[in-house]
Amino acid sequence: MTRTHDVEQQVEEMARRARAASHVLGSLRTQVKNAWLLRAVERLETCRESILAANREDIRQAEENGVAAPLVRRLSLAGDKWESMLDGLRQVASLQDPVGEISELRVRPNGLRVGRMRIPLGVVAMVYESRPNVTVDAAALCVKAGNAVILRGGSEAIRTNRALGAELRAAAQDVGLPQDAISVVPMTDRSAVDYLLKQDRSIDLLIPRGGKGLVRKVKQESAIPVLAHEEGVCHVYLDASAELAMARAIVLDSKLKQMAVCNGLETLLCHREAAHKVLPAVLKALHEEGVEIRGCPATCEIFAEAVAARDADWRSEYLDKILAVRVVDDLDAAIDHVQRFGSDHTEIIVTQDYASSEAWLRRVGSSTVGVNCSTAFSDGYRLGLGAEIGVSTSRLHAYGPMGLEGLTTRKFVLYGDGQLRE
Amino acid sequence: MTRTHDVEQQVEEMARRARAASHVLGSLRTQVKNAWLLRAVERLETCRESILAANREDIRQAEENGVAAPLVRRLSLAGDKWESMLDGLRQVASLQDPVGEISELRVRPNGLRVGRMRIPLGVVAMVYESRPNVTVDAAALCVKAGNAVILRGGSEAIRTNRALGAELRAAAQDVGLPQDAISVVPMTDRSAVDYLLKQDRSIDLLIPRGGKGLVRKVKQESAIPVLAHEEGVCHVYLDASAELAMARAIVLDSKLKQMAVCNGLETLLCHREAAHKVLPAVLKALHEEGVEIRGCPATCEIFAEAVAARDADWRSEYLDKILAVRVVDDLDAAIDHVQRFGSDHTEIIVTQDYASSEAWLRRVGSSTVGVNCSTAFSDGYRLGLGAEIGVSTSRLHAYGPMGLEGLTTRKFVLYGDGQLRE
Repeated sequence: MTRTHDVEQQVEEMARRARAASHVLGSLRTQVKNAWLLRAVERLETCRESILAANREDIRQAEENGVAAPLVRRLSLAGDKWESMLDGLRQVASLQDPVGEISELRVRPNGLRVGRMRIPLGVVAMVYESRPNVTVDAAALCVKAGNAVILRGGSEAIRTNRALGAELRAAAQDVGLPQDAISVVPMTDRSAVDYLLKQDRSIDLLIPRGGKGLVRKVKQESAIPVLAHEEGVCHVYLDASAELAMARAIVLDSKLKQMAVCNGLETLLCHREAAHKVLPAVLKALHEEGVEIRGCPATCEIFAEAVAARDADWRSEYLDKILAVRVVDDLDAAIDHVQRFGSDHTEIIVTQDYASSEAWLRRVGSSTVGVNCSTAFSDGYRLGLGAEIGVSTSRLHAYGPMGLEGLTTRKFVLYGDGQLRE
Repeated sequence: MTRTHDVEQQVEEMARRARAASHVLGSLRTQVKNAWLLRAVERLETCRESILAANREDIRQAEENGVAAPLVRRLSLAGDKWESMLDGLRQVASLQDPVGEISELRVRPNGLRVGRMRIPLGVVAMVYESRPNVTVDAAALCVKAGNAVILRGGSEAIRTNRALGAELRAAAQDVGLPQDAISVVPMTDRSAVDYLLKQDRSIDLLIPRGGKGLVRKVKQESAIPVLAHEEGVCHVYLDASAELAMARAIVLDSKLKQMAVCNGLETLLCHREAAHKVLPAVLKALHEEGVEIRGCPATCEIFAEAVAARDADWRSEYLDKILAVRVVDDLDAAIDHVQRFGSDHTEIIVTQDYASSEAWLRRVGSSTVGVNCSTAFSDGYRLGLGAEIGVSTSRLHAYGPMGLEGLTTRKFVLYGDGQLRE
């Protein structure tokens, strides 16, 4: 009882301090924010051994608790992961600061000049699972965009996250950035998340990264705006005019290169006219790579190794060596399928036809739509955002891969010389 | 029991149909949307007498139910209000269609071209009170931006709203726009709102317009993103260098010209150095117009007619002839006051000083910040947005006055010729 009350008070206090820090951060010079990022690299390097020791202890404990092996692997910060975490900090330091930029400055007929200035959101809270490098990545992006950040990682990574958070805060103090710009929730109590969801006076945005259950809970229970990436049921559609070589290369790249990420291919659609010319060779290549094909009746007729797909397959994010395949009558049927079963993530058409490409780009409403390229390009780095804090599949504010700009908003700025209403 | 079940089914069906209509609307030509707007003007003109009769019946019923006189007045569509409602439709027809515009099209090193295409949000639901002209205004803006709209007005305006909705749908049928693009919730059951809040599979955005209780309820109970205008506790700050004539004109205009709207002045802040030079004349002018002055101790010392302000006054949206007034030590104290008590709406500085003006614009985080102009300019029309569907005081997606653009989002569009991941 007292304990729960303590957790509530701690979370509330943390959010209040983050809000206060955000008022300072909002107009801090880029130089100070960059100095913090580079100082953090130095501090993390200095403390490398003790942080990796905390990380090994998290891993040992997770194994003891019987956490599944893939999840345990994601916990580790050793080897390449450590280096790429530090590289991430350096890269964020090199990104242009979006804060303060004024755009669309126009003069009204009465002489009032009206523009829109990009500003931070304020306080961002992230709730995530497993990977402790998210602690560093998210802190870097949020603070570079001028936001205070509250980080709540998985309980299995608590020692690592605490150690990382301590260095990020110490680096802040070193360079004159408010320490409360970065807070790691130090306790593993589940109730801490519930209290975090209630701080709508102090938190401007919640970013849940994890399973569907977590995202759903956050959306349902909080009055704070949520940017959620829920799932990626991504489609490639082979149009009637699709060429075999390009179709095969794009499908294999989209399905096989990084299977466990949200922009991987999950359902292949194929125009009836391409079903005999192109589909068999594409499916054969996939099958040879060990991909299980779950097909509609027409697919099973064309490709003997296919098993019959059920309705649930059209909605499945396998993240595995399984592909749902459906032959459709035409482009309209392909678009209907995507609208009905898709998750607003990434949909690619393979075509040589101008009208088909334009119709696909215009009419498919998903957050990334493309012609003749891999689904892999639905990614903040590959799209040129310079960074990525998540992929939003809800349409408000940021839709699709989200970088620094998604962590800001715009206010109206008015330059007058005495204007009154007419 | 059966009844409630019916309401639930009707609301769900309405949302499902709106979602289906939104798929057609999203790529409809501007010509068709404009034809609908102009056809609606014709139909409303033709049915003017019967709609005004329904409106009179709503008013009669409201008076019989003892609804307060100001609310009853807002119900009426007669006279000027009718004309300005039709003018609104014509004006929306003349606005540029934001849908389909591609911006920031850039070429990646591998030749992939990446741009961002503006698209509708999908389905927008508005929950509002009293004024039935909102039914027509909101439908016009939502549909012009390519969204299907579900309208739930106050029960006291139900006959008027039903009559308006029928004509808007009939006009849609006349020009080949899907009728389900416009739905008016036909029943007055309170449970209809509860069911609406649950349609997160079919509705992309909720816009509540009404009292704090309504906004709070919508935010708390729904997993659907919400764009809420909560309240406007707007500030004018008279800097040390403020000139009397401009200060007086801006304060009087901001406070008195339209008192019942959210961009009206509620708290006046004044630099200690301006408190003797400028404040007495400003307060005298307000007092002569019948404004009650609730001042901090320094204000009460300077201006004998002031009454002592309580803490609650700093947070009050009076919408009335009352003004809270506080003398502050400097610009920092003024900004602190706004951060602590403001509502992120509109804050204006009156100054002749370059550094003060820049600091105000940069450091005050409200949705509209300005120098030397009336608070009245925090308004979609006056800022040049061409229209306004509300003023958002939450930072996600749209912050401040919100026009057509706020009813859209952007997706990534990729033009490739076979690009795979490196």
